[in-house]
Amino acid sequence: MPIQLYDLAGADPKRRFSPNCWRVTMALAHKGLAFETIPWRFTDKPAIAFSGQGNVPLIIDGDAVVPDSWEIARHLEAAYPDRPSLFGGPAGHALSQFIANWTDTVVHPGVARLILLDIHDMLAEVDKAYFRSSREARYGRSLEAVVADRDVQVIEFRKSLSPLRRTLDRQPFIAGEHPAFADYIVFGAFQWARTASTFAVLTPDDPVSHWRDRLLDAFDGLARATPSRGE
Amino acid sequence: MPIQLYDLAGADPKRRFSPNCWRVTMALAHKGLAFETIPWRFTDKPAIAFSGQGNVPLIIDGDAVVPDSWEIARHLEAAYPDRPSLFGGPAGHALSQFIANWTDTVVHPGVARLILLDIHDMLAEVDKAYFRSSREARYGRSLEAVVADRDVQVIEFRKSLSPLRRTLDRQPFIAGEHPAFADYIVFGAFQWARTASTFAVLTPDDPVSHWRDRLLDAFDGLARATPSRGE
Repeated sequence: MPIQLYDLAGADPKRRFSPNCWRVTMALAHKGLAFETIPWRFTDKPAIAFSGQGNVPLIIDGDAVVPDSWEIARHLEAAYPDRPSLFGGPAGHALSQFIANWTDTVVHPGVARLILLDIHDMLAEVDKAYFRSSREARYGRSLEAVVADRDVQVIEFRKSLSPLRRTLDRQPFIAGEHPAFADYIVFGAFQWARTASTFAVLTPDDPVSHWRDRLLDAFDGLARATPSRGE
Repeated sequence: MPIQLYDLAGADPKRRFSPNCWRVTMALAHKGLAFETIPWRFTDKPAIAFSGQGNVPLIIDGDAVVPDSWEIARHLEAAYPDRPSLFGGPAGHALSQFIANWTDTVVHPGVARLILLDIHDMLAEVDKAYFRSSREARYGRSLEAVVADRDVQVIEFRKSLSPLRRTLDRQPFIAGEHPAFADYIVFGAFQWARTASTFAVLTPDDPVSHWRDRLLDAFDGLARATPSRGE
């Protein structure tokens, strides 16, 4: 049986927008593993109660039930050691953890500030109230207020990508000559923006855009083919 | 003949404060190589003109003359492959490049904002005028004005270390169970602060402080033993 991935979806069950789920989708493709996805909604906690927690991504791989994108990548690396490596050894594993923390503390908050209302607007009705109340509590203002000055905020966001931009000036991928999990961690954030919003978080001439394009083309255009609002 | 390292020095030739030179000092110790250092001053360009450029760190290793901390690490890794690895393979090498770019664009500017005047004050007289005019041109104001609000700026600086802090919550070193060049890249910035200034850039209970302490203790306390103003 193929691996099953519980994958966050919008009103359209084909719209898969979760950045952390995209980390896993790309990791599964990188390993060349057969998998199928199960659309899941924020408020559908009962459907994944068997996993002992309430978040996606979540995979079922034979007897293994594994939530959390980082733990899923570790599981795939350990369970399929003969497939292409996601980390490139212990040093690559440790340094990918830094990339995950940089993405979680810099890139995700930066993207969210720009597309929060767009995410809301494509959710199933049942999820919209949950999303609005939880996010408005977190930000201390309305979704509309959070994104109101995004034309200004995007300048700061692009500046915050300097470490990534400089790296991609020297090498085609974060992990070097070929992409690996470190790339998919960061790419998930841009796929989040692209699937949910028409807002241009990057300029077309940015080396980060060119790297994003290379990952959209990877695995026969897997990420490019998904229903999206952006280019 | 041991490797020679041209190492930036203050008025006291024993005071070695350059963050990029500390990357190299730690890398040489990591490789277990015999080396000696030659104190060098900002304005002493003629002394290193033989290298075809005007900056330190700069090493002479037999016939090889290598400037630039990143290139020096690459040289040491290639020339001494049987010694402990600085990168841990191609993925570690590529991801260490991201760490260098994060350090150069986030950590170094953040530390400089706090200690710029302290650096000036410990320089040899001949370097002080150069340092003041070049840095005041870069910042567009006096050294005194740059550091005037450092008690406030340090709060932002500590926040900017979130990706590092979260990583060190999970593993003892950036490179994993043992330190490697990725650690020395970031450590150099804290050694810069410690050698030049009494200002506390970190709080004692910060996981980043504990990591810094582990690196101060490494190689028989090599970094801890150097003349410093901070703890």
